[in-house]
Amino acid sequence: MRMYDIIAKKRDGKELTTEEINFFIEGYTKGDIPDYQVSALMMAIYFQKMNKKETLDLTKAMVNSGDTIDLSKIDGIKVDKHSTGGVGDTTTLILAPLVAAAGVPVAKMSGRGLGHTGGTIDKLESFEGFCVNLRIEQFIENVNRIKISLGGQTGNLTPADKKLYSLRDVTATVDNLSLIASSIMSKKISSGADAIVLDVKTGSGAFMKDLDSSFHLAQEMVDIGIGMNKDTMAVITDMDQPLGFAVGNILEVKEAIDTLNGNGPDDLTELCLTLGSHMLVLGKQAKDVQEAKTILQDIISSKKGIDKLKEWVRIQGGDEKFVDDPNLFPIPKFITPISSSYEGYINRIHADLIGIASLILGAGRETKESPIDLSVGIVLHKKIGDFIKKGEKIATIYANSIDKQAQAESMIIDAYDIIKEKVYKKPLIKGIITQNDSIRY
Amino acid sequence: MRMYDIIAKKRDGKELTTEEINFFIEGYTKGDIPDYQVSALMMAIYFQKMNKKETLDLTKAMVNSGDTIDLSKIDGIKVDKHSTGGVGDTTTLILAPLVAAAGVPVAKMSGRGLGHTGGTIDKLESFEGFCVNLRIEQFIENVNRIKISLGGQTGNLTPADKKLYSLRDVTATVDNLSLIASSIMSKKISSGADAIVLDVKTGSGAFMKDLDSSFHLAQEMVDIGIGMNKDTMAVITDMDQPLGFAVGNILEVKEAIDTLNGNGPDDLTELCLTLGSHMLVLGKQAKDVQEAKTILQDIISSKKGIDKLKEWVRIQGGDEKFVDDPNLFPIPKFITPISSSYEGYINRIHADLIGIASLILGAGRETKESPIDLSVGIVLHKKIGDFIKKGEKIATIYANSIDKQAQAESMIIDAYDIIKEKVYKKPLIKGIITQNDSIRY
Repeated sequence: MRMYDIIAKKRDGKELTTEEINFFIEGYTKGDIPDYQVSALMMAIYFQKMNKKETLDLTKAMVNSGDTIDLSKIDGIKVDKHSTGGVGDTTTLILAPLVAAAGVPVAKMSGRGLGHTGGTIDKLESFEGFCVNLRIEQFIENVNRIKISLGGQTGNLTPADKKLYSLRDVTATVDNLSLIASSIMSKKISSGADAIVLDVKTGSGAFMKDLDSSFHLAQEMVDIGIGMNKDTMAVITDMDQPLGFAVGNILEVKEAIDTLNGNGPDDLTELCLTLGSHMLVLGKQAKDVQEAKTILQDIISSKKGIDKLKEWVRIQGGDEKFVDDPNLFPIPKFITPISSSYEGYINRIHADLIGIASLILGAGRETKESPIDLSVGIVLHKKIGDFIKKGEKIATIYANSIDKQAQAESMIIDAYDIIKEKVYKKPLIKGIITQNDSIRY
Repeated sequence: MRMYDIIAKKRDGKELTTEEINFFIEGYTKGDIPDYQVSALMMAIYFQKMNKKETLDLTKAMVNSGDTIDLSKIDGIKVDKHSTGGVGDTTTLILAPLVAAAGVPVAKMSGRGLGHTGGTIDKLESFEGFCVNLRIEQFIENVNRIKISLGGQTGNLTPADKKLYSLRDVTATVDNLSLIASSIMSKKISSGADAIVLDVKTGSGAFMKDLDSSFHLAQEMVDIGIGMNKDTMAVITDMDQPLGFAVGNILEVKEAIDTLNGNGPDDLTELCLTLGSHMLVLGKQAKDVQEAKTILQDIISSKKGIDKLKEWVRIQGGDEKFVDDPNLFPIPKFITPISSSYEGYINRIHADLIGIASLILGAGRETKESPIDLSVGIVLHKKIGDFIKKGEKIATIYANSIDKQAQAESMIIDAYDIIKEKVYKKPLIKGIITQNDSIRY
């Protein structure tokens, strides 16, 4: 078998066999096949696409390229959640305690990642003492004891995906549904999940800007999951504006605590109840979504959710007093409200601009080595459909540098589009894809 | 400017600017842009094509990537000829003396090349003592004295093309008209020609198998030549069977001598008269093709052509007695006729198979380092349209190894397709493309 022939075959629009895909992934992982042949193949795939079978084969080959985490010693059905990413997305910190409190084991391996804010690990480290360096035995014991644990990623998971992603990133070949879907799903499956709930974001602040592409991506991922015998479903959700009000690490942690206390933003609360309900159903802790939602609402009102967060923080060495009194979290030097120069209805909030403003303030990483400032960020006071008067507070900036604050301020002002005509709020949940159904709202 | 954006732009079907093409070629030549980005761009070009302007810009950038040979000290219009390659193509050895005898300066730089037989240099080295290592001053003086000289390639010509071609060769991105045309034309132009006659082969033994693609390639190359202010035209010629009868180095030299003596195969003679006539017209030694053809026919019949070959061989140190008596050339150990097992008309001769048989016998190079056996090869006795009786000689193999002879024999037998129905000979010249005209016969 020769890589040349595989490139030429895909270039000519033909289906690659399982053996050809395995040959390419194994050879690339080992370093036998050079980058320049792989990037040519990626560009051929960009134009000629891969079908369902090829996409599944590619995912399997990437899972097999490295270690897989064995979570079989954990009781119950391990349901993992994955979001395709957006701005102000605090769901994991809320969802994990909620579904754990309902009996679904949450065994999460997480990275630090690059982005507008830190990853889940960074946010949890806002709780002084919180430690993610657990041995695998400890990690598993914690899940069996309190149904929840978060560890840093260990082992050499999907090395083929890592190489492939870095290459695609510099050769303009990221944007292909099969390649995106197989990249995400190979990571999830090698992490040992039994079932997967996907939150596919759509809109200006999402990777997928239009609704059709988002549905296609969701369908592609659900098909892969089902094809690998993992119970998988997807919710397609709005990212035309940041989720919730807070963007930043500690700011989002505080918002998560509010939400677990029943005082969270409407959209964030709705998203967590929706995703959580599906997790409960896949985890066989509720017979349907209605029942699951009732269970989760009860968990919030009875404070079982916030208690689970405290238990989680405590067992991993963190200081739970921050959960009881979020005012103890450190605050940055400059907290500055921004007033609106216009009166009218909020028509759009360019989530991308808000994200970049957050990055500029220091809340996220541009490179793997960048330090992160947990205290900085942005709190929005108005969302799409809200009315604002001239001079009224539109957002508040949390900064440790006057220069960066000024930069962020002009971006936030640019991000808001205010018009005279009445604007109606749009639904958050755009649709659902399960093994047998694809529903658009 | 970033290579990423150039890849993405072409991927999306947009036109690259002159600056972008220069940036990419300069960066790649210097090693600043890695192979994996270039191969992704090549695959994007494969799918999205380049327009005339981009193709011209690419050719210019490749010419500018290295040295160009200065032939301005040579009197007259230097007309170069390029063939896209086929099997049994001996034209240079015939054409060069013919047009030189007619007053067109022939200043040829040639490589050894890979292929079914050696290159023009290898063939000329059949004349004992023939030397191609001329200093540029000597090379130019020879052309001014006797109108003809052949040198080995010197200088660092089109390094970008060399890198690009090697990369395309292993990434399944060779097959694009703009890339093929710019590669050929950049080499011709950097070699210092004032005018160019292109022989674009079409058919089973050619790089371009079908007539339409051959016309497109010819048009693309003529447009580049004109765009670079070089008088350029193309003849599209048949390569559905080997040209002439001989395939091999010394065998082709003997055939060239026969042709210069007026005793060559019909197709080879016709091709040389056609290409030569156009060279005379571009070189302003004849007012039109009719006049040029009469001049060339006279050069053959008056022996001025064969005398020019002798003068050429002599001035470069070779032994001209081989021209007078080709029986002096060395012959291989085994000369074996092959008889036909069938009776009927020759319907096809798979030129590719004849070429590979020649390579197996040792007449060509598989790698740059392969030694070459000048004496071996194949002489065909029947061409398309000929009638053959059972047991009649169809070809003769010249070999230095019984094993290789046996391998070649079975390939030659496979190459011949003999049928009962009458087969008519097909015309050799398929069409002509000039600056203003595209004519199909």
